[in-house]
Amino acid sequence: MFPGATDEREVTDTATGTDRNVDTDTGGEEPARGGANFVVVGAPLDVSTTFQPGTRFGPRRIRTFAETFDDYDRRTGQYFSELGVVDHGDVRAWDAVPGYLEWLEGTLRDVVWDDAVPLVMGGEHTVSLAGARAAEPDAFVCLDAHLDLREEYDGNDLSHACVTRRILELEGVEEAIVLGARTGSEAEWDRADEDDVTVVPPEEVAAFSFHDRLEGRDVYLSVDIDGADPAYAPGTGTMEPFGLEPREMRDVVRDVASHACAFDVVEVNDRDDGQAASLAGKLLREFVFSAAESSV
Amino acid sequence: MFPGATDEREVTDTATGTDRNVDTDTGGEEPARGGANFVVVGAPLDVSTTFQPGTRFGPRRIRTFAETFDDYDRRTGQYFSELGVVDHGDVRAWDAVPGYLEWLEGTLRDVVWDDAVPLVMGGEHTVSLAGARAAEPDAFVCLDAHLDLREEYDGNDLSHACVTRRILELEGVEEAIVLGARTGSEAEWDRADEDDVTVVPPEEVAAFSFHDRLEGRDVYLSVDIDGADPAYAPGTGTMEPFGLEPREMRDVVRDVASHACAFDVVEVNDRDDGQAASLAGKLLREFVFSAAESSV
Amino acid sequence: MFPGATDEREVTDTATGTDRNVDTDTGGEEPARGGANFVVVGAPLDVSTTFQPGTRFGPRRIRTFAETFDDYDRRTGQYFSELGVVDHGDVRAWDAVPGYLEWLEGTLRDVVWDDAVPLVMGGEHTVSLAGARAAEPDAFVCLDAHLDLREEYDGNDLSHACVTRRILELEGVEEAIVLGARTGSEAEWDRADEDDVTVVPPEEVAAFSFHDRLEGRDVYLSVDIDGADPAYAPGTGTMEPFGLEPREMRDVVRDVASHACAFDVVEVNDRDDGQAASLAGKLLREFVFSAAESSV
Amino acid sequence: MFPGATDEREVTDTATGTDRNVDTDTGGEEPARGGANFVVVGAPLDVSTTFQPGTRFGPRRIRTFAETFDDYDRRTGQYFSELGVVDHGDVRAWDAVPGYLEWLEGTLRDVVWDDAVPLVMGGEHTVSLAGARAAEPDAFVCLDAHLDLREEYDGNDLSHACVTRRILELEGVEEAIVLGARTGSEAEWDRADEDDVTVVPPEEVAAFSFHDRLEGRDVYLSVDIDGADPAYAPGTGTMEPFGLEPREMRDVVRDVASHACAFDVVEVNDRDDGQAASLAGKLLREFVFSAAESSV
Amino acid sequence: MFPGATDEREVTDTATGTDRNVDTDTGGEEPARGGANFVVVGAPLDVSTTFQPGTRFGPRRIRTFAETFDDYDRRTGQYFSELGVVDHGDVRAWDAVPGYLEWLEGTLRDVVWDDAVPLVMGGEHTVSLAGARAAEPDAFVCLDAHLDLREEYDGNDLSHACVTRRILELEGVEEAIVLGARTGSEAEWDRADEDDVTVVPPEEVAAFSFHDRLEGRDVYLSVDIDGADPAYAPGTGTMEPFGLEPREMRDVVRDVASHACAFDVVEVNDRDDGQAASLAGKLLREFVFSAAESSV
Amino acid sequence: MFPGATDEREVTDTATGTDRNVDTDTGGEEPARGGANFVVVGAPLDVSTTFQPGTRFGPRRIRTFAETFDDYDRRTGQYFSELGVVDHGDVRAWDAVPGYLEWLEGTLRDVVWDDAVPLVMGGEHTVSLAGARAAEPDAFVCLDAHLDLREEYDGNDLSHACVTRRILELEGVEEAIVLGARTGSEAEWDRADEDDVTVVPPEEVAAFSFHDRLEGRDVYLSVDIDGADPAYAPGTGTMEPFGLEPREMRDVVRDVASHACAFDVVEVNDRDDGQAASLAGKLLREFVFSAAESSV
Ligand SMILES: [Mn+2]
Ligand SMILES: [Mn+2]
Ligand SMILES: [Mn+2]
Ligand SMILES: [Mn+2]
Ligand SMILES: [Mn+2]
Ligand SMILES: [Mn+2]
Ligand SMILES: [Mn+2]
Ligand SMILES: [Mn+2]
Ligand SMILES: [Mn+2]
Ligand SMILES: [Mn+2]
Ligand SMILES: [Mn+2]
Ligand SMILES: [Mn+2]
Repeated sequence: MFPGATDEREVTDTATGTDRNVDTDTGGEEPARGGANFVVVGAPLDVSTTFQPGTRFGPRRIRTFAETFDDYDRRTGQYFSELGVVDHGDVRAWDAVPGYLEWLEGTLRDVVWDDAVPLVMGGEHTVSLAGARAAEPDAFVCLDAHLDLREEYDGNDLSHACVTRRILELEGVEEAIVLGARTGSEAEWDRADEDDVTVVPPEEVAAFSFHDRLEGRDVYLSVDIDGADPAYAPGTGTMEPFGLEPREMRDVVRDVASHACAFDVVEVNDRDDGQAASLAGKLLREFVFSAAESSV
Repeated sequence: MFPGATDEREVTDTATGTDRNVDTDTGGEEPARGGANFVVVGAPLDVSTTFQPGTRFGPRRIRTFAETFDDYDRRTGQYFSELGVVDHGDVRAWDAVPGYLEWLEGTLRDVVWDDAVPLVMGGEHTVSLAGARAAEPDAFVCLDAHLDLREEYDGNDLSHACVTRRILELEGVEEAIVLGARTGSEAEWDRADEDDVTVVPPEEVAAFSFHDRLEGRDVYLSVDIDGADPAYAPGTGTMEPFGLEPREMRDVVRDVASHACAFDVVEVNDRDDGQAASLAGKLLREFVFSAAESSV
Repeated sequence: MFPGATDEREVTDTATGTDRNVDTDTGGEEPARGGANFVVVGAPLDVSTTFQPGTRFGPRRIRTFAETFDDYDRRTGQYFSELGVVDHGDVRAWDAVPGYLEWLEGTLRDVVWDDAVPLVMGGEHTVSLAGARAAEPDAFVCLDAHLDLREEYDGNDLSHACVTRRILELEGVEEAIVLGARTGSEAEWDRADEDDVTVVPPEEVAAFSFHDRLEGRDVYLSVDIDGADPAYAPGTGTMEPFGLEPREMRDVVRDVASHACAFDVVEVNDRDDGQAASLAGKLLREFVFSAAESSV
Repeated sequence: MFPGATDEREVTDTATGTDRNVDTDTGGEEPARGGANFVVVGAPLDVSTTFQPGTRFGPRRIRTFAETFDDYDRRTGQYFSELGVVDHGDVRAWDAVPGYLEWLEGTLRDVVWDDAVPLVMGGEHTVSLAGARAAEPDAFVCLDAHLDLREEYDGNDLSHACVTRRILELEGVEEAIVLGARTGSEAEWDRADEDDVTVVPPEEVAAFSFHDRLEGRDVYLSVDIDGADPAYAPGTGTMEPFGLEPREMRDVVRDVASHACAFDVVEVNDRDDGQAASLAGKLLREFVFSAAESSV
Repeated sequence: MFPGATDEREVTDTATGTDRNVDTDTGGEEPARGGANFVVVGAPLDVSTTFQPGTRFGPRRIRTFAETFDDYDRRTGQYFSELGVVDHGDVRAWDAVPGYLEWLEGTLRDVVWDDAVPLVMGGEHTVSLAGARAAEPDAFVCLDAHLDLREEYDGNDLSHACVTRRILELEGVEEAIVLGARTGSEAEWDRADEDDVTVVPPEEVAAFSFHDRLEGRDVYLSVDIDGADPAYAPGTGTMEPFGLEPREMRDVVRDVASHACAFDVVEVNDRDDGQAASLAGKLLREFVFSAAESSV
Repeated sequence: MFPGATDEREVTDTATGTDRNVDTDTGGEEPARGGANFVVVGAPLDVSTTFQPGTRFGPRRIRTFAETFDDYDRRTGQYFSELGVVDHGDVRAWDAVPGYLEWLEGTLRDVVWDDAVPLVMGGEHTVSLAGARAAEPDAFVCLDAHLDLREEYDGNDLSHACVTRRILELEGVEEAIVLGARTGSEAEWDRADEDDVTVVPPEEVAAFSFHDRLEGRDVYLSVDIDGADPAYAPGTGTMEPFGLEPREMRDVVRDVASHACAFDVVEVNDRDDGQAASLAGKLLREFVFSAAESSV
């Protein structure tokens, strides 16, 4: 269970006699009647990872390395454990990706219909597609070293390398903003030149401002941990040097949180000494603190 | 390149102007005209691994840890580098398993048609199916902790957990002998009770004798490295304690080699200090020394 | 949660309106009314470890590496998931050992009073003291490289190096049988020479028979994973070469299970590639299969 | 032995016939009569570590990874081996913390009475309390991700999470300055708001100046290695992202060294590839070079 | 084989009947007649490493971790695989360094005579001496934490710690520019004060400009990976904190590439999670992209 | 310092005013006047290792992992710390092997002249040559996977692969008995067929008896840790499967100890989880206990 979160079953147990879809919207307040403001869902899909596998252990790693974090957040004056975060546990993965994504989408749609914000922990980046289908955002904001704009990869159009493109194809998704991207195929870069994609290179992320671009829109915020420089997150499938610093990623998360209808952090594996998982858990918490604060 | 093997391109280059299918049968002798007696093929498929992934790095690990072995084998008085072993390199894997198996089968069929013995290095156990389709054996002999007799696993009938069953379904395969098996589902054990399967538990492998059961038959010999006790091969996807000792595995390899039309060693990953890869490389060499000796 | 076990809360949830102490005795049958036959309890105490720390991660490691094991056990024809095993989760540890042991004892006493068998996963060996206090056995049978018969260690009489001695001091405990012991202080060996201690050196464990010595007695069975040779369990606090083979440990577990009122496996840490945890999880399951079979 | 330091016994051996307390004050000069200017003391206490243990291996790791550093320091024009650094070795730890701290304090008090500067290598942060008791500073300056201002942690008032608070309670300690702190409980932050605590968040450390605030005061300088961002020191008990860069830590060490009566570097463990120990050893050396230079 | 490079044998095979020295100058174009613009040569020498050995695995690690990089480079609009990079494989090392360097020099001289640019992957820094002998540069530009200006080290004048000095002694080498250097012996710093050496400390590398200093000269560019801060490259023989950031190294590589007659990246070992190799592979590619672009 | 040993300086310090060569022979008794019965010498030579380097860390690893062993030995009724074992520390290595061996020989000759038994901890196997030159044995008994009978290796006649041959060339050495050997070049096996070499394959070591073959002769006993099966000692330069079990090695050590004038254990590196070092330290202690017991 994510440290500070509540076990879903406990919440459900106390919710006897009420309609879940009605009573779970707690309006940013501490959930009073068994509802949740945020629901952690592990999605340990690990099929299309190109190079170093192990992202199936991502949810477990993130939960584990989050154990050391204080419940209290000084900046916002909030306690994580009081923000209505429920841990659903993992949606166990198998290797038939289309079916898994549908199943995962179902779970996440339940979260959305309960007016809670899903917090997905990957697993490979592909799981964002399930998240976006469930959350139906207007815009997709992503921290990533890669464009993930391929039409397909090795014949697979559900590869993690295609996820931003697939999300752009969803009805209602108006644009993607990819921060920290530094590599892609020529076709991906061409796709990125179209109007519905904004690429912010790593060197420009610190100075980048969303201004009022996200106002009034539902944003899906996705953190591919390889957006960070490998020094900060060596435990990921495809390290790409010259990346972001954690504070730059944190500031993006803080900026976007108040507009976000869903969040995920993906591509963490177990092939380092905990750096990637530690950063991932911290960014997830930053998201919750910022989102909760803005919703009051 | 497997230490002591020859690069395939060099062999091919010198074979100009001759029909490959004719001239590569070297009859166990040092190959004289560019042919091969054995062809190493890496098959780094890593899709259905249930627990710890990384078997995609198996071929690389085995080649690396085989570097320390002496070229000369005292028991048989042979030099590995003189036995006509060619390294084809890896058949790069992707995540659409049926297509990959067909492609791999094609490569291995070429080897078989050249009258050479394929030496497949996995990759997950599933690759044995491609090997068996190519080699068309009469019997399948396997060292494995698991029965691999499932009808399907997580809806996937090409999972590594189904490979022995799939091979038994191939035309011409009369039986499977699984040595070292110590676990399976109830349905697998029921399948194992049928006439075409023989299971030798780990405790009985040392005393087991094939007698003349393999005489005159083409045997596919498959070594799932998890047949060994985890002490000897921790770097594998699903460790299963109470397993075989390396010398027991070696003796099976020696016994079967003279009857084998194909060999593989599978399920080695990079999650240990080299023990699994070292053992795998040694068993592959034992196979070659024994097969070459018997073919003279 | 231990793979195949049931979450305690689920069990409790269905037990509404009944007295737990009454309805949980399932008499070795599949639990019908929310009761349990076995209760897994993690006890991640990690204070007195002399050399390599990390046994606090033992319960997590064992649960993780047990994920690969089949639910079905061919020898006994049973399914682990049908044997009434409930996972209580961990009793979170802190560094004041006496208080922690009392708290842990309370949890385990609840299990015992429910007529279920506690399955404790350490944590350092000290936790066996809480288990023995709760289970009140007649005899203590232990697999261990060490005698653990010290009066105190570094001034601490609750060190893991004193646990067998402390248990012998409990009222009702008539004797200790330590299998695989191969080292100790002179004072420990002198203590071991007394009538209430039997030491079976590693070389003699395979041939050792309990005969009817355990008949009619309640036995506490404790597996210190360092009883195994370091090859089989490098992930432990104090490796001691020349140890037991896993099958020898397994056979002891099978022999004792039918007499056991409690079981633990301790001293597993995270400083290997999973060998120690894999073996520990397997031995715990062997205990359950054997105990369940004998209780029918 | 710390590379470049002298073994304590050698020093003591040559000091025959003189009163140690008198002759060891070398006034910052190269020690002429067997005395020391700095004394390295390992304090491998590893009891209250909340998450990842192993800080008991800190002193050994730091000594080992310091082997690669040049004896000569270009900035100050000094040779480390000529600065009168003696390595006392480790004060072996046990798990009764109050007693250990007293014992350690005694060792460090001897150092102080010899007019040498203790250089303590932890071990958990708790050891700073022994250092501060021995050195009796006017102010406590600390690099740390954490406030360490808890009244108690898990009922333990000698936890590493309480050490700055305990030191503030010592007679004579007027204030604590914590640089790089980024997390704490609400009660800790409230305590930090009092007049005797200054917290400098990581983002402001680079620009922070002590001005003449430390003039004329004896300062205890403590480096909790987790003050660094996890990229630079993953081998520590509780990683906390968004931390300091090594050069920022170095500059604080340089600034404070001339005022310091004692130094420590703590919370290094063995769970990385040497980054944490390498940084710790370098900061210890920076301290010595700066302190020695200023004392001339 | 370096990802995107061509196997040397394939190139050579098609070059039959032509004079290699004539036809391999492809003028920055895709090589049309079997020639190469760049030749990757592994030089796994690992003899004089002072502290942590393993640089013999450097070439293999770099090739492996480069597998994840995209073929296409957006900045220059080029495909790596179209730039005429051939992988020669490794020049297997042995422990008699003078002989090995001569042998390696021969291989590299062949590359130079073919008008191609050698891309050497170490191996210890000593291999740069062979490279410089073969390439006969006018200037030596180096990213390194160390001056490497020793007259000898442990009696060995071919130690990695002497390589820049040895290169300065070569006929025709006018100067050395060492960027990122932060440590050395006093004698090395004195040597560095001479006119033919420029040292740029890490803090000044970002602002450093070569202006037209390299115009019209043949430069040997050497990247000792320990020039990076250990966070970015822990897998190296002698970590030295307070180092360069990857983007600073990248910008130097981009600046120098158009003047370079040879390139190497050295001192990568296998003692991290791939960070050092990933950075090394990326810098090698940056060199190729920049050099190829400028040569058009 | 080896656990239980005395620091050499302490011993020497108290030996003032006496001739060392006279007073150190303590005849197997507890040393009364500062002499030693056994002297531990670390010899971290790591130059010719063919595959995986790191044996330079062997002495440190062995000392570290020996910390967990009890001082008392039940079999012989002795305390290790009372047997007169002095730890000389390491003889720091450099890469000019002939010079290093001479220097090391000098140190060991001092030990021998003091009538103490040297206990060398490698470092690569080459250091045995220095040991044998110093100890001048009549016979060389060796546990090793390899014959080490090469005339030279890669042009180096002081490679670890030549050490047994070099020792056989020493004046006075009558024969070599190599136990556990399972691989070698054809020339090595031919050399092994000569009268002065006895090879005992791994399968026959358990039943092998020295009978009275060693009576009255001074034996040099060398343990190359790769004699063990890789499961028991993965941390070594060249793993060779199908090896010895630790108890078989232990029994050889016990048998030979009473005849031995010198002992070494070599080829331990840091590339495992401590298994190799743990076994090495245990065998060294077994040697001391057995030798001390027999000398009474
Ligand atoms: Mn992505
Ligand atoms: Mn990415
Ligand atoms: Mn299998
Ligand atoms: Mn298997
Ligand atoms: Mn124990
Ligand atoms: Mn024990
Ligand atoms: Mn602290
Ligand atoms: Mn801290
Ligand atoms: Mn260098
Ligand atoms: Mn360097
Ligand atoms: Mn040897
Ligand atoms: Mn050997």
